[in-house]
Amino acid sequence: MSITFLIQCPDAKGLLAGTTSFFYSEGFNILHCQQHTDLLESVYYMRIKLDIRDLKCSRKELESKFAAFGAERGFKWSVHYSDIVPKVAVFVSKAPHCLYDLLLRQAEGEIKCDIPLIIGNHPDLEHVADKFKIPFYCFPFTQETQAKCEKEMLCALKKHHIDLVVLARYMRVLSGGFLGACDGRVINIHHGFLPAFQGANPYLQAYNKGVKMIGATAHYATAELDAGPIIEQDVERVSHELSPDELKLTGRDIECKVLSKAVKYHLENRIIISGNRTIVFASGI
Amino acid sequence: MSITFLIQCPDAKGLLAGTTSFFYSEGFNILHCQQHTDLLESVYYMRIKLDIRDLKCSRKELESKFAAFGAERGFKWSVHYSDIVPKVAVFVSKAPHCLYDLLLRQAEGEIKCDIPLIIGNHPDLEHVADKFKIPFYCFPFTQETQAKCEKEMLCALKKHHIDLVVLARYMRVLSGGFLGACDGRVINIHHGFLPAFQGANPYLQAYNKGVKMIGATAHYATAELDAGPIIEQDVERVSHELSPDELKLTGRDIECKVLSKAVKYHLENRIIISGNRTIVFASGI
Amino acid sequence: MSITFLIQCPDAKGLLAGTTSFFYSEGFNILHCQQHTDLLESVYYMRIKLDIRDLKCSRKELESKFAAFGAERGFKWSVHYSDIVPKVAVFVSKAPHCLYDLLLRQAEGEIKCDIPLIIGNHPDLEHVADKFKIPFYCFPFTQETQAKCEKEMLCALKKHHIDLVVLARYMRVLSGGFLGACDGRVINIHHGFLPAFQGANPYLQAYNKGVKMIGATAHYATAELDAGPIIEQDVERVSHELSPDELKLTGRDIECKVLSKAVKYHLENRIIISGNRTIVFASGI
Amino acid sequence: MSITFLIQCPDAKGLLAGTTSFFYSEGFNILHCQQHTDLLESVYYMRIKLDIRDLKCSRKELESKFAAFGAERGFKWSVHYSDIVPKVAVFVSKAPHCLYDLLLRQAEGEIKCDIPLIIGNHPDLEHVADKFKIPFYCFPFTQETQAKCEKEMLCALKKHHIDLVVLARYMRVLSGGFLGACDGRVINIHHGFLPAFQGANPYLQAYNKGVKMIGATAHYATAELDAGPIIEQDVERVSHELSPDELKLTGRDIECKVLSKAVKYHLENRIIISGNRTIVFASGI
Repeated sequence: MSITFLIQCPDAKGLLAGTTSFFYSEGFNILHCQQHTDLLESVYYMRIKLDIRDLKCSRKELESKFAAFGAERGFKWSVHYSDIVPKVAVFVSKAPHCLYDLLLRQAEGEIKCDIPLIIGNHPDLEHVADKFKIPFYCFPFTQETQAKCEKEMLCALKKHHIDLVVLARYMRVLSGGFLGACDGRVINIHHGFLPAFQGANPYLQAYNKGVKMIGATAHYATAELDAGPIIEQDVERVSHELSPDELKLTGRDIECKVLSKAVKYHLENRIIISGNRTIVFASGI
Repeated sequence: MSITFLIQCPDAKGLLAGTTSFFYSEGFNILHCQQHTDLLESVYYMRIKLDIRDLKCSRKELESKFAAFGAERGFKWSVHYSDIVPKVAVFVSKAPHCLYDLLLRQAEGEIKCDIPLIIGNHPDLEHVADKFKIPFYCFPFTQETQAKCEKEMLCALKKHHIDLVVLARYMRVLSGGFLGACDGRVINIHHGFLPAFQGANPYLQAYNKGVKMIGATAHYATAELDAGPIIEQDVERVSHELSPDELKLTGRDIECKVLSKAVKYHLENRIIISGNRTIVFASGI
Repeated sequence: MSITFLIQCPDAKGLLAGTTSFFYSEGFNILHCQQHTDLLESVYYMRIKLDIRDLKCSRKELESKFAAFGAERGFKWSVHYSDIVPKVAVFVSKAPHCLYDLLLRQAEGEIKCDIPLIIGNHPDLEHVADKFKIPFYCFPFTQETQAKCEKEMLCALKKHHIDLVVLARYMRVLSGGFLGACDGRVINIHHGFLPAFQGANPYLQAYNKGVKMIGATAHYATAELDAGPIIEQDVERVSHELSPDELKLTGRDIECKVLSKAVKYHLENRIIISGNRTIVFASGI
Repeated sequence: MSITFLIQCPDAKGLLAGTTSFFYSEGFNILHCQQHTDLLESVYYMRIKLDIRDLKCSRKELESKFAAFGAERGFKWSVHYSDIVPKVAVFVSKAPHCLYDLLLRQAEGEIKCDIPLIIGNHPDLEHVADKFKIPFYCFPFTQETQAKCEKEMLCALKKHHIDLVVLARYMRVLSGGFLGACDGRVINIHHGFLPAFQGANPYLQAYNKGVKMIGATAHYATAELDAGPIIEQDVERVSHELSPDELKLTGRDIECKVLSKAVKYHLENRIIISGNRTIVFASGI
């Protein structure tokens, strides 16, 4: 069990020594500490993981002490306790591969979260939800019903105390209002190697362009389509022999891999968003 | 020693049996035969490699017999004899890595060609040419001198009977007239993963966008910048830790790898250009 | 719908022209034809895919004509009709990831086969079989019960007309007798990069050795443990930061990927076994 | 310019806070700090990079202060100043690719070191050394002359104050005595994916085994052949189509890539050797 702090602040001397000393003086063993300095922008990023068994005061007390400490140094920070299991809602449409992949990794304990509900804009994947005994809600999202749908979906997310929404090939563009209400915690998988092939049918685009590799990109969803901060990407080599349909099949595996990694990084508190980029402390405990 | 035929034609029944029988009846052992059918466009592509020792008539005779055979079937074709060593001109600017890589692979016998001249728009890389005892010509290509320069360079290419021009980070955009005079046989390396990041400074573009992988693309140069048929691409994983300069360094290795593969595929007669795509028979003898 | 011939024979002149002409004269359109010549051993390999709609005689007639044709040339061959859906039995133990992966790809139509039964040496994965409505049989295979178990399992395989057995992390070593009765059609996934790390607990072996990449290998099972012809392999980069348990987790994804590819290659009749090696015509239709 | 400390010690509470505070109290800005805890063995590893401009005392003073600090905590440590350019000797035989690759990266500033001499057991690569104006010494190392050769080579290494020996396809097994005299600072490239394919002709071994990927491994040389701590590995996908000679060609690129990375990691003080494993802080400044 652990406590993770994610911190960003203007670069300065003594940040690492000061911060680690703060936690040491509070009696903590530091399990892992990672930093990154953006030299172009003079911003300092830190991820600090502590042993929760060393916590001798209440969580609120720790947080208010750290808030005071950080205020002097211009910290923007968040704290995460590993015994609070995050709740994730998965949004789907008709393609089941990413949904299956997430449910399996969750069931196997690789992705640590609860998934109290799955939302579809079509009823097609209810049987998958049933296999894993997770409630499935169908909101038939169309241009006309968008406003009403989003309102009802937000309501469902709140009722279930959802911490993260994962768009697992949801195929609908959510409004800025909806995304805002989710406070930026919406991860989307784009079935293309961004920034190339934005928008619809990237596999046909890739075929027509004759590219030799195809890819997928997981990113935080923003109001601007397929343009939010990138979390993870991957590619596979392809050849002229593959039809658009076969490219799509190859793409499926990449999408699963990339989306599950992005979700894992988020849930393990490895990501700091910085403007339109992400700092991902991908490795380490 | 071998003879390679590259063929494209409208798809039809009996093309493979007919063509292989043609060569068999001419006494040839077929070393390798590869095909591809583009089902969307109904076009058939073939690469056939023959043992040159089986050639019993003159080359001209073989070619005119095959021309007659192919005319009935709508063949567009070319033939290549492995005992005719192709002549390659390398165009460079200031960055030496791709030039070195090509010269080494040529010296080691991996890339089979002669390199009778290297052309730079700056004198910076003359010392590299000297190391390998290859004549170096400097044509100080600027917007004002472009017309004159291109004329002189074309003249040099003709004098040396150049079969292929390789733009090894040449950093200049050649005119449609120049490319036309080279008959499409100009390979360029773009230091980015096309179609993303066209144009200048792709590594800074990649940094600003926060991509998690960077790549390079080798393609035939066309009058439209960075848009010609793609031959080969590759990528490497990167992280937020890399500055634009370090991305550039990572990119160098990818550029070398991708460009040398593309040149090799071309010189081994593995590529058929089809509209804006390439059919690359990358494997096999 | 298609007919696929897999052929191996001593290398000779005219094999390609002769064989394609045979099929052309029988009225077939050749959809794809791939060859490989092992120059060290002078063996010729061919995979020929025909349009089944061109079949004008009975299958038996075609086969006996081809047998006569092949006998003169020393062909070892097999023929496969795509309208006969192969039947696959999956053997499992306690780890569910490869089983899930195969069932999903089968359900999605990526792997074309029927899976009439799943056999476990433990009852743990019955719930997975249930999810996909596939009968599950538990044969509690131990050293004492091996002979009896294998007999009963063979019986079950025969009753269901099984064409291929897939050991999806079965964790038991089957006898040569059993494998022989399956006629070599048993694919195993080894959770290590063979020939390194044969035998048990390869992830701990890899950790202790401090390797920087781990891998998995799919191969045909033979009486000699982990030494049968390799079909497919893959690796992922790892670092000192990963514990043996985390290596295992990384390995899971590689195992799924490698096993499903191997099964696909087998079911698409892309593999010719040649001594202890495989010729895998991995690409193309 | 920077100072890098590499530290290993028994795991304990407060190591990070204590060590960073030590450097902070000495007036240093910590540019980067990386740690790793081996939970199986309870060993703590640290790499700390400081801004050299913050050094206010003599280097000897800093070192003795740190020695006192570390002694209480059981530190094994080393310190490296980036303004002291390490001197590297490259040992070669007949294959030039790794040598060229290293010389080019050194010339381009990617690998930061001096290369005052190249040693060959054959005279074949003198022309490469000449191209880069580096003295070349030929020691015709055979079983009979080994003792004499090694003595003379050690003499040459000492005269040139060599910090690191790189065996760039040297093809000779150096004695434990020689390696001991080099104090473990000898990096070898093995043209195979260790621990598979130890010893001679790994590409033929790989061909005969029918592997689907080939690789290379860079490791510290120890008296036991091809068994020293692994620094870096990589692989490429291959198919049955490649002959042993073509596997060798593919291997060449992997060898260059892997060896240059290993040398770079060593020279950038990113490696801590721990028993027979390495901790490689591969990323970060």
